[in-house]
Amino acid sequence: MTLKNAFYAQSGGVTAVINASAAGVIETARKYPKKIGKVFAGKNGILGALQENLIDTSLETDRQISLLKYTPGGAFGSARYKLKGLKENQREYKRLIEVFKAHNIGYFFYNGGGDSMDTAHKVSEMGEAMDFPIVSIGIPKTVDNDLPITDTCPGFGSVAKYISVSTHEASLDVLSMAETSTKVFILEVMGRHAGWIAAASGLIANQRDEPPHIILFPEIPFVKKNFIEHVERSVKNNGYCVIVASEGARYKNGKFLADAGTKDSFGHKQLGGLAPVIATMVKESLGYKYHYAIADYLQRSARHLASKTDLKQAYSVGESAVKMAIKGEKSKMVTIDRLSDKPYKWQIGSAPLAKVANNEKMMPRKFITRNGYGITSACKTYMLPLIKGEAYPIYKNGLPTFAKLKNKLVEKRLKTKFMV
Amino acid sequence: MTLKNAFYAQSGGVTAVINASAAGVIETARKYPKKIGKVFAGKNGILGALQENLIDTSLETDRQISLLKYTPGGAFGSARYKLKGLKENQREYKRLIEVFKAHNIGYFFYNGGGDSMDTAHKVSEMGEAMDFPIVSIGIPKTVDNDLPITDTCPGFGSVAKYISVSTHEASLDVLSMAETSTKVFILEVMGRHAGWIAAASGLIANQRDEPPHIILFPEIPFVKKNFIEHVERSVKNNGYCVIVASEGARYKNGKFLADAGTKDSFGHKQLGGLAPVIATMVKESLGYKYHYAIADYLQRSARHLASKTDLKQAYSVGESAVKMAIKGEKSKMVTIDRLSDKPYKWQIGSAPLAKVANNEKMMPRKFITRNGYGITSACKTYMLPLIKGEAYPIYKNGLPTFAKLKNKLVEKRLKTKFMV
Repeated sequence: MTLKNAFYAQSGGVTAVINASAAGVIETARKYPKKIGKVFAGKNGILGALQENLIDTSLETDRQISLLKYTPGGAFGSARYKLKGLKENQREYKRLIEVFKAHNIGYFFYNGGGDSMDTAHKVSEMGEAMDFPIVSIGIPKTVDNDLPITDTCPGFGSVAKYISVSTHEASLDVLSMAETSTKVFILEVMGRHAGWIAAASGLIANQRDEPPHIILFPEIPFVKKNFIEHVERSVKNNGYCVIVASEGARYKNGKFLADAGTKDSFGHKQLGGLAPVIATMVKESLGYKYHYAIADYLQRSARHLASKTDLKQAYSVGESAVKMAIKGEKSKMVTIDRLSDKPYKWQIGSAPLAKVANNEKMMPRKFITRNGYGITSACKTYMLPLIKGEAYPIYKNGLPTFAKLKNKLVEKRLKTKFMV
Repeated sequence: MTLKNAFYAQSGGVTAVINASAAGVIETARKYPKKIGKVFAGKNGILGALQENLIDTSLETDRQISLLKYTPGGAFGSARYKLKGLKENQREYKRLIEVFKAHNIGYFFYNGGGDSMDTAHKVSEMGEAMDFPIVSIGIPKTVDNDLPITDTCPGFGSVAKYISVSTHEASLDVLSMAETSTKVFILEVMGRHAGWIAAASGLIANQRDEPPHIILFPEIPFVKKNFIEHVERSVKNNGYCVIVASEGARYKNGKFLADAGTKDSFGHKQLGGLAPVIATMVKESLGYKYHYAIADYLQRSARHLASKTDLKQAYSVGESAVKMAIKGEKSKMVTIDRLSDKPYKWQIGSAPLAKVANNEKMMPRKFITRNGYGITSACKTYMLPLIKGEAYPIYKNGLPTFAKLKNKLVEKRLKTKFMV
């Protein structure tokens, strides 16, 4: 049996620690030179395989690969590109297998969310059908924390830590100015379908009336009257009101708050986010001075405040994917299995890709308080361990040192180009 | 001579390190019990003096005062409240002196920006006129970095570090996704009058074509056509474009870009910020997918990423204010004087309050590149030392430990209430 190479690709929105998973894959593969040949990384994720743009990671130094643990973003490029079903579009899967064959690739490590697990599963099936078996292993990643079976998703713990710390800091700011200035502060965070990220802000509140005073979850239908009453009560009782809102907050009929139906003076649909919509609502109903922040990419790339637990898990899922592949397991996703809450203990497990694919995990209702604006102690018990520990980048002259890869492409072997 | 008490107040927008200045004042005063009595802090800044709401800091433990160094926001409350001129409104100044007299306060430490230095100066004058001399010392603070004479303003170094690190992280995120997703990313930062904060993002670029590709300064009139050309060139050359915009970016006629003149469907003026205006402009002209973040209070409260240099200076200006007062200096603002760039050396100095008051320091033109979209090496030489070093808060179970003060008020001695 000849030594097979491996293909690794990053998929979907990147995180503060997805490159730690890449480091886990590459460093572990380097430890088993008799089992795995080179690790090729897809330039811009799966597009790199389709277009035969394979980055030769063997040309990167150990130091640079190690620095990936401290580097946010996706070091090889990621892509928002979903392959279609096998029936609709065999062409893409066939191309993948052709490229893998041409470069003697026997291992496929796909680092992403639910869609990516689906792709990884199909690649495995297609390999079998084309008589070129591929060991396909999914490496979980998503700030949305919505993958099933695994206890958490690498990337989530770090964004959760960032949001909780940032909410605490900004709340102290607002509190100190509220007498003569801003009374209502809104922080808009990611979470189109599930409120996991917004929920993290609730970790800082230990007593009633501590911020954040209101969390808006996509899971809880928004009722304006009730919301405005809560804002008013908070300002009257506490002098201020801190609101953390999931971008996916919506009305009972499913309409997003962010979709305000407003137009600018040119008649174009207003392209604002959720925060200004809520701010305007508060201003018009209660007249309070407000400020808002939109965390956007800052939150998911905030490597400077990564959770040490999250970083360890991100590395570990990469490392374990390689070890599982060597052991001959296939069509599996690596999982993080919780053994106990206090003390927090976890181990690596696995789940069949077929069971993971296209199966979203929402916030359980018991994690949200009865009034719908806060998190319960059950939620805290689940989430606090995930943000534990700090794992700072290495700073030089005040700025972090990030990996700088060569990202040199392997020479192409196929004559055909592939149009995506 | 009886032992006089001191009054300390925080003024204007708070910073990540203003409480370090408070710690400098209180810890230093505690070292000189034969020179200074109690330190009273104004509840909500100068309002605390006017309303005789004085916090007795002697009731706080050494540990809590020490924790102030790690705590963002204003621990005693700050205020946006500007006293009028002596001629227009002697009433307020007279009230201040009455309160000071009633509580045997002989030292006034005012921690703020330009307006506050003006107030500190007038308090000193009024004390003389009312035959109750007050040793009035200004302690500089402002994220805007716009105080004259002092080389920098405590608070600025930390926001500068936050913006440069965050821009770098988000840029890596955008770069890795640009092929199939967001091509233009806009980060809106503070700076209504001066571009110091936006300039800090430029510290991460070492070569042409490195992000941020465009910085928008209030000092440089915005020209849409030129801007759009630059965005297009950056996307064509680099695949993406990162823009950092001062909230005060404006056209040649002085009109702010954020003042888009747009209205919502109710006919109300649109309350959006600058970032969505630029985003819409890019989308309409070039069609690129965009994202934007608005850092707002997150930037000025980001104690988790404070600059160690800034923290030291913030503490030092508080400490020095007390030492200067004990030495009998008065009507001075503490300054940070730069002795050399490389290696960076600084010392504490002072300037007459009269010279500081109401005198804004803008970005020198030589700090901005000729095309108006970047910073020069002269700017980097000035700014890099200010973000140097990390000074993390103490974390417990994943979250920072902030000071929790009792903030107990001194019993009132005046019979009259003061309406502000």
